Amino acid sequence: MTIAAIRGAVKDKAQFAELHAQVEQCTKKEGSNGKPFWELRLRDAADNLTLRVWSDSPNVRVCEELDDADCVAVEGEFYVNGAFGMDARRWELRRLMPDERATLFEGSEADRAKVDEDYAFIERTIAAVRDPRLRALGQRFFEASGARFRRAAAARVNHHARRGGLAQHTAQMMRAAMALCDVYGSLNRDLLAAGVLFHDCGKLWETCPPEEGFAIRPDLRGELMGHINIGVEVVNAMWRELPKADWDGLVPASDDVRLHLIHLILSHHGALEFGSPVLPKTPEAIALHYIDNLDARLEMILQAYATGKEVAPGVYDRVRPLEVGPIAPLPAFFEAGAAE
Amino acid sequence: MTIAAIRGAVKDKAQFAELHAQVEQCTKKEGSNGKPFWELRLRDAADNLTLRVWSDSPNVRVCEELDDADCVAVEGEFYVNGAFGMDARRWELRRLMPDERATLFEGSEADRAKVDEDYAFIERTIAAVRDPRLRALGQRFFEASGARFRRAAAARVNHHARRGGLAQHTAQMMRAAMALCDVYGSLNRDLLAAGVLFHDCGKLWETCPPEEGFAIRPDLRGELMGHINIGVEVVNAMWRELPKADWDGLVPASDDVRLHLIHLILSHHGALEFGSPVLPKTPEAIALHYIDNLDARLEMILQAYATGKEVAPGVYDRVRPLEVGPIAPLPAFFEAGAAE
Amino acid sequence: MTIAAIRGAVKDKAQFAELHAQVEQCTKKEGSNGKPFWELRLRDAADNLTLRVWSDSPNVRVCEELDDADCVAVEGEFYVNGAFGMDARRWELRRLMPDERATLFEGSEADRAKVDEDYAFIERTIAAVRDPRLRALGQRFFEASGARFRRAAAARVNHHARRGGLAQHTAQMMRAAMALCDVYGSLNRDLLAAGVLFHDCGKLWETCPPEEGFAIRPDLRGELMGHINIGVEVVNAMWRELPKADWDGLVPASDDVRLHLIHLILSHHGALEFGSPVLPKTPEAIALHYIDNLDARLEMILQAYATGKEVAPGVYDRVRPLEVGPIAPLPAFFEAGAAE
Amino acid sequence: MTIAAIRGAVKDKAQFAELHAQVEQCTKKEGSNGKPFWELRLRDAADNLTLRVWSDSPNVRVCEELDDADCVAVEGEFYVNGAFGMDARRWELRRLMPDERATLFEGSEADRAKVDEDYAFIERTIAAVRDPRLRALGQRFFEASGARFRRAAAARVNHHARRGGLAQHTAQMMRAAMALCDVYGSLNRDLLAAGVLFHDCGKLWETCPPEEGFAIRPDLRGELMGHINIGVEVVNAMWRELPKADWDGLVPASDDVRLHLIHLILSHHGALEFGSPVLPKTPEAIALHYIDNLDARLEMILQAYATGKEVAPGVYDRVRPLEVGPIAPLPAFFEAGAAE
Amino acid sequence: MTIAAIRGAVKDKAQFAELHAQVEQCTKKEGSNGKPFWELRLRDAADNLTLRVWSDSPNVRVCEELDDADCVAVEGEFYVNGAFGMDARRWELRRLMPDERATLFEGSEADRAKVDEDYAFIERTIAAVRDPRLRALGQRFFEASGARFRRAAAARVNHHARRGGLAQHTAQMMRAAMALCDVYGSLNRDLLAAGVLFHDCGKLWETCPPEEGFAIRPDLRGELMGHINIGVEVVNAMWRELPKADWDGLVPASDDVRLHLIHLILSHHGALEFGSPVLPKTPEAIALHYIDNLDARLEMILQAYATGKEVAPGVYDRVRPLEVGPIAPLPAFFEAGAAE
Amino acid sequence: MTIAAIRGAVKDKAQFAELHAQVEQCTKKEGSNGKPFWELRLRDAADNLTLRVWSDSPNVRVCEELDDADCVAVEGEFYVNGAFGMDARRWELRRLMPDERATLFEGSEADRAKVDEDYAFIERTIAAVRDPRLRALGQRFFEASGARFRRAAAARVNHHARRGGLAQHTAQMMRAAMALCDVYGSLNRDLLAAGVLFHDCGKLWETCPPEEGFAIRPDLRGELMGHINIGVEVVNAMWRELPKADWDGLVPASDDVRLHLIHLILSHHGALEFGSPVLPKTPEAIALHYIDNLDARLEMILQAYATGKEVAPGVYDRVRPLEVGPIAPLPAFFEAGAAE
Repeated sequence: MTIAAIRGAVKDKAQFAELHAQVEQCTKKEGSNGKPFWELRLRDAADNLTLRVWSDSPNVRVCEELDDADCVAVEGEFYVNGAFGMDARRWELRRLMPDERATLFEGSEADRAKVDEDYAFIERTIAAVRDPRLRALGQRFFEASGARFRRAAAARVNHHARRGGLAQHTAQMMRAAMALCDVYGSLNRDLLAAGVLFHDCGKLWETCPPEEGFAIRPDLRGELMGHINIGVEVVNAMWRELPKADWDGLVPASDDVRLHLIHLILSHHGALEFGSPVLPKTPEAIALHYIDNLDARLEMILQAYATGKEVAPGVYDRVRPLEVGPIAPLPAFFEAGAAE
Repeated sequence: MTIAAIRGAVKDKAQFAELHAQVEQCTKKEGSNGKPFWELRLRDAADNLTLRVWSDSPNVRVCEELDDADCVAVEGEFYVNGAFGMDARRWELRRLMPDERATLFEGSEADRAKVDEDYAFIERTIAAVRDPRLRALGQRFFEASGARFRRAAAARVNHHARRGGLAQHTAQMMRAAMALCDVYGSLNRDLLAAGVLFHDCGKLWETCPPEEGFAIRPDLRGELMGHINIGVEVVNAMWRELPKADWDGLVPASDDVRLHLIHLILSHHGALEFGSPVLPKTPEAIALHYIDNLDARLEMILQAYATGKEVAPGVYDRVRPLEVGPIAPLPAFFEAGAAE
Repeated sequence: MTIAAIRGAVKDKAQFAELHAQVEQCTKKEGSNGKPFWELRLRDAADNLTLRVWSDSPNVRVCEELDDADCVAVEGEFYVNGAFGMDARRWELRRLMPDERATLFEGSEADRAKVDEDYAFIERTIAAVRDPRLRALGQRFFEASGARFRRAAAARVNHHARRGGLAQHTAQMMRAAMALCDVYGSLNRDLLAAGVLFHDCGKLWETCPPEEGFAIRPDLRGELMGHINIGVEVVNAMWRELPKADWDGLVPASDDVRLHLIHLILSHHGALEFGSPVLPKTPEAIALHYIDNLDARLEMILQAYATGKEVAPGVYDRVRPLEVGPIAPLPAFFEAGAAE
Repeated sequence: MTIAAIRGAVKDKAQFAELHAQVEQCTKKEGSNGKPFWELRLRDAADNLTLRVWSDSPNVRVCEELDDADCVAVEGEFYVNGAFGMDARRWELRRLMPDERATLFEGSEADRAKVDEDYAFIERTIAAVRDPRLRALGQRFFEASGARFRRAAAARVNHHARRGGLAQHTAQMMRAAMALCDVYGSLNRDLLAAGVLFHDCGKLWETCPPEEGFAIRPDLRGELMGHINIGVEVVNAMWRELPKADWDGLVPASDDVRLHLIHLILSHHGALEFGSPVLPKTPEAIALHYIDNLDARLEMILQAYATGKEVAPGVYDRVRPLEVGPIAPLPAFFEAGAAE
Repeated sequence: MTIAAIRGAVKDKAQFAELHAQVEQCTKKEGSNGKPFWELRLRDAADNLTLRVWSDSPNVRVCEELDDADCVAVEGEFYVNGAFGMDARRWELRRLMPDERATLFEGSEADRAKVDEDYAFIERTIAAVRDPRLRALGQRFFEASGARFRRAAAARVNHHARRGGLAQHTAQMMRAAMALCDVYGSLNRDLLAAGVLFHDCGKLWETCPPEEGFAIRPDLRGELMGHINIGVEVVNAMWRELPKADWDGLVPASDDVRLHLIHLILSHHGALEFGSPVLPKTPEAIALHYIDNLDARLEMILQAYATGKEVAPGVYDRVRPLEVGPIAPLPAFFEAGAAE
Repeated sequence: MTIAAIRGAVKDKAQFAELHAQVEQCTKKEGSNGKPFWELRLRDAADNLTLRVWSDSPNVRVCEELDDADCVAVEGEFYVNGAFGMDARRWELRRLMPDERATLFEGSEADRAKVDEDYAFIERTIAAVRDPRLRALGQRFFEASGARFRRAAAARVNHHARRGGLAQHTAQMMRAAMALCDVYGSLNRDLLAAGVLFHDCGKLWETCPPEEGFAIRPDLRGELMGHINIGVEVVNAMWRELPKADWDGLVPASDDVRLHLIHLILSHHGALEFGSPVLPKTPEAIALHYIDNLDARLEMILQAYATGKEVAPGVYDRVRPLEVGPIAPLPAFFEAGAAE
């Protein structure tokens, strides 16, 4: 079970479970009574947990041999320990087997199938782009950074803040963008598809866990430039390396294509105070901004229904970036006797 | 030609044209030289124009017989008269024929076909709503206020600020909403369709021209309550009158359906400072808010391309509610030899 | 003693007291040592307290039979238990006698006299309204919702956030409103009196404890509509049911009276960002907004003097909605030898 | 007639009138045709008007002898001259007689009676202050600056922006303050009365016309310090000069009284962004802030009804500092057959 | 004389002068009387002026032969023509001689000496940079874009909004930066010097007049990216082309040097809402932000003293980006008998 | 060692140290087990620490005799005790010797030398002021309040929030101001020097510890007026007492000098919302504002490097008033073989 799943399960009463996670840190400390203990911080794709190993526990032996980034199983009884939060008792610690470890990082078979489907949809959409420059740019991106793209998170907190979250967010935005291009015929479909693909590509460096890991550390380039500007640098670098032999005379001009794409990246937060140095000034920039917000906010509210606390019937606890306490959605009307 | 069309045409040089419009006001005034003149304010679906009739003009005779709300043709040479703006010279004034008058209010055949298509799409979508309560509410609205709905504007300024603009805005939002329901399967399609239909229904009273007229006057109820609260009152009033005999035991409960719909109306501006007394707290409220903004902003930028001033190649004059000067859109890539 | 009174008394040293309160929740939990204990959350009109009952305590027997909403007495020694806050030791738990329970909900004789006086003043003021429509509306409100009005709170936090707080706030605002009508002769006294009575009437549903209870739960209608819009719905519903036989030809027109009253409710927060969908546009709306704020802020600062912490001589701890740390008021000048 | 009165009268058609006003500036200029003309800027207590005297007019002779600050009568036909605004034709210019001039500055008998009544009420209220220090301070202020107080304006624009406006604003605030002290018994009546008297006393230097004049010029001290800080300096200067022989042992301490009064002056704008360097931290500071705002806003809306433009039935033109277009007030209910 | 100088001179009375300026546009228009006239828009380094040439003027012949961007002299009598602003009469138009034209673009000898001094100071400072990477980058910039740097403006409005304004702003900031490095010894002098040089280098493309011209047109890249991001692109492009053979093992690492410099460019506006996508996070970024603001604001206030209107003694008209009306500076104390 | 130094040292492992500090409060409390213990709150120039003395400790005897404001040494092993923060074990408490006590308040010899140097620089700069009025004012300030000036803090939190911090902040600002006067020749050097000296002089009363103490208590005058207005009062009071015999005829006029200085004090926060009641309107006011901010922010970021937590390589924990997590500064370039 994941940390989040166990957290959900023990809300009301203690429960036996087996948890697989990565060691973020395992430190030997000294208690106020002078006795040593081990503080074990664990992390999986979407959550983290701290356990203490007292000196008289058989787990001490395992702790002493643990390296940071090792993966472990914790089997025992989980419960809520007052203000300290979720804790475990009568638990046993062991290193994961290689195949368990692989599953921990890549997710279950169902998870992987979902990721593969999302990723394939993004690739198919880019393959269908008619402008050869944007298509080539997208394909170079898949080659150069595909693995990184599959594991990046969309954020350190807020929405899609989990290993693999960025690809999922991008795929869903791509679906919405294509659907809206059918409604708004004047939108430039090629440009918008490229804009969706690259809008957050700076996050492959700003909020990306290591190949075998979950922790996302602040990064010097991310802190000094921000993901929007890393994204521009990344696109510019790939653009320079594209084979441009056949581009002469293409309409619109190649540098205009590049400028419009960079405008989408720069403006997609939609407001200066949210970190976009320019406001959206083209139809595709406007569309991209709203598609991004819509997907992020829907993900946040659905997440709240799944894991948030219901403080009164149908009323959920306040979610920070939504600024509200969500209300349970109105169920679809069910016509008795009709096939749903 | 419409006032806006003529305005576009005379940017560079004077031009002969025939303008059809309604008289907003025709007042006799006295010049600083003591001579009387007539000030004639004209308005059509999307613009207005003031002309002066000097005492020695043959148009004086027509002016003397004009009532406010009469419809007239102005045939002559239009030009830009410095800071005074667009003006006309050597022009002749006459009353419109009944069929010309009808066309003025209902638009050209092409316009009417567009309106009919939009309106029919809205009706079809509501007819396909499965929840009998929301479907009945929508149908009652078409019966009770259909004509008013067809002529209301979406605003007094900004986007869709023209006779018939609200239905067009609503239809396009409905198309976007249905497209996004395919992408986000958990959205309640019935509720969202009803939300789109009713979100601005208060504007049928706040920003609606008379049956035969273009001018939209501030209205006491609109000023004291605002269109959001008029909309809530309108929905509540229709709801009370619905035949509720067969609703017993329907799931979800009828009052929950009503509350969720009213929440969509109240929250669709998305922020307190934009006049929504509550923030969006359900998936459909979030979706409605973004669909509304997306359609409004795309309309504004397309409008700017059509009628705004190009202050430098590809750079348009600042549009107030967009807060930017739009940039000419990137044309779709054209593959020579391929069918577009 | 009330929870707040005990909290005040034990600031410096432990103290014996008898506390009467309602059980909000009584849950059996398990400690980290595996032993069970009971967590008992108590609430009275203005505060709440959590106690723990260890398994070896005689109070366990009482806990096992407690239902939520039962009322209890806690007699023992109260003290401040470090970061855990106020706690009790050597205490005994028992169910309240019926008369004790009644007193808990209705307050002491002095409290009740104060409430009766406030309520009577509101009724008298409405009875003196000359406009028969506003007078009838007010009287219907007393009949339909008087009991609810007597027990509603004015807020869940901030000012008058206690059972019965709304009526007290309304009475004091009514006194201020009548006094200001003497100063500003052009104010419509009838309209302003009705505005004061109804401005927060939506809170009878949004922040109202049950008949025998103190806890105020978030409510679906309150969350989806907000108290301002519930208030409008309530007034509209009562208005429809008023006998209108004798209203023909009354001046001003009845619907104008209704619109102006609804405008007062909608605009009384005074700014969009505080949740009013329209700004005050009439003299009475302006007056109501300031009377409401003045009473709320005076109550908050007086409350801070009574229960807040004095962090330096004459300087009180910061009060959130006031945004400042209050300063002790300047005592009235005392003329020795003169009758005060 | 005053400029404002004539402005109101000529909205619809030209009108003969006699205007009395002071010359703000009378400048000889040269037209584009090379001919000289005189530009005559006139000002009275609440408005201003610019007229042009062409070289062939008999008024030229009068203009040539005019000094700035002279007072004149303009008798002629006033009308609205398009975008230029109100203008006059066929008018005659003459210097005012001494008694006409006196009336121009002091107002009509009715005006003076109103001012005397306001001023007397302020004096009576201060005479009734029981704290000898605040009473002495008020009385010294009347002696030292009474004449200046009678003619100061409350602002250069916005509310009470006219010669004598400050005393009228202060009197009405004083009435409201005394009425609210009856409702809120814990308010320190002496302190609040002094706060009302002195809250804007810096305006006696910042926005005060000369003894015989209407124009209010920006003043170096006003610009460098602001009226709030001038007010503090003025109160501190008067305080130092008070005879303090008998103050020993008075309770509360004299310096505390001074500090609390200065706090009222400093905090009365109620928010840092409105220029108060500290926020209200005492009950009297809170009360003073709301009393000031209430009176200012009521004056603005009543002024709008009197002189603003009605853009639709019952809807007035937007008033800048109110941020709204006022709505006509609901008339008081009239009971036929009853004595009003 | 420059347009601004003449504008200053004619405030009070008409004045003969000879103006040299460039033609921005010369358009033939038709008056309301049907007669043609020419509208001539002129511009020099810091201001612009529109004149009308009537059909009976001898200047018509010159107008007919003018191309946009031609340079002309206007000799005649300048005066203020009411609301139309500054105008001229009895004037003669002629094309400039080649040397007059050169002087128009390059300024007087004194102007050029000032520019040369500023530019030389900047070059010297960069030559003294010890870090070979930042020194090489600066020198490449002088080679590649020196001419453009000398003529760019610092803005289209606000401060240093004139041909050559950017170099002057940069030089003065460089002097301040070097002075502050002496005070704050821990600042990285090399990095700060480079930051000053490049902070606005994107303006060489965003707000740069052509080689022989004054008009600054919006530019597609400027509008889509903003000068901050153009600056980053420019620095990155130059960086890639630097010979890096000898950089191995330099401390600090070369890419860190580049990142820190880019951070200075990105963050120098100091706040997201002013268009910086990241906030200053290093000592040099903090220093650069304040040095930039200090120089810009001092330039604006000195400019206001030079050309702004004095609305009362010592009080100048409000300056938009300063948000205040400047007050005349306090003259330095003059000790009689002492050498100044 | 200071509390802050020990806090830095024990981040990773427990450490023996001797701490000298002042007793802020020593209170006897009772634990949940009924046993008494002593809570000892200690404070030094920049930090504070709470220790508990259990009833069985030999330190109890010392505690029983301690008065608030006594100074003590704590010798023992310091360590981080989980969420409780830094704690000590096996420690011994004793009163400080008189010379240890003196050193605690005055700092080490090196500290005192730094303070003396700063103070001397400020005095020298003021002695060099040429305007006799500003020079006299400065010198009176040194005489009257020098000792207080040496020990005041610049703030209760944020920058320079420590005994003696204000003088250090003032000295560094003075150095920057003098350096910038060399760059900007038009700045009035005398006025700016005086502005730097007095800008925060109100803090000598608002945030000043007692002669022998570290705790800074909120103060009634500070709370009611704010340090800006105390500063104005202090300057005005000293100004009145200056011997003015020789000031006749000095240029600029003496009251203008005073007004300009007061303007610097009032406006130095630079914005209404930061508590300045007027915005900077003179060159010196603009310069003072930026010099103040620059010094404050540089101090904060250098402080963060010294004591903040490094959350990732080169990335420091968020600093509240900077609103960012600082990034490690780029080290100066080191040329191997060259003398640094």
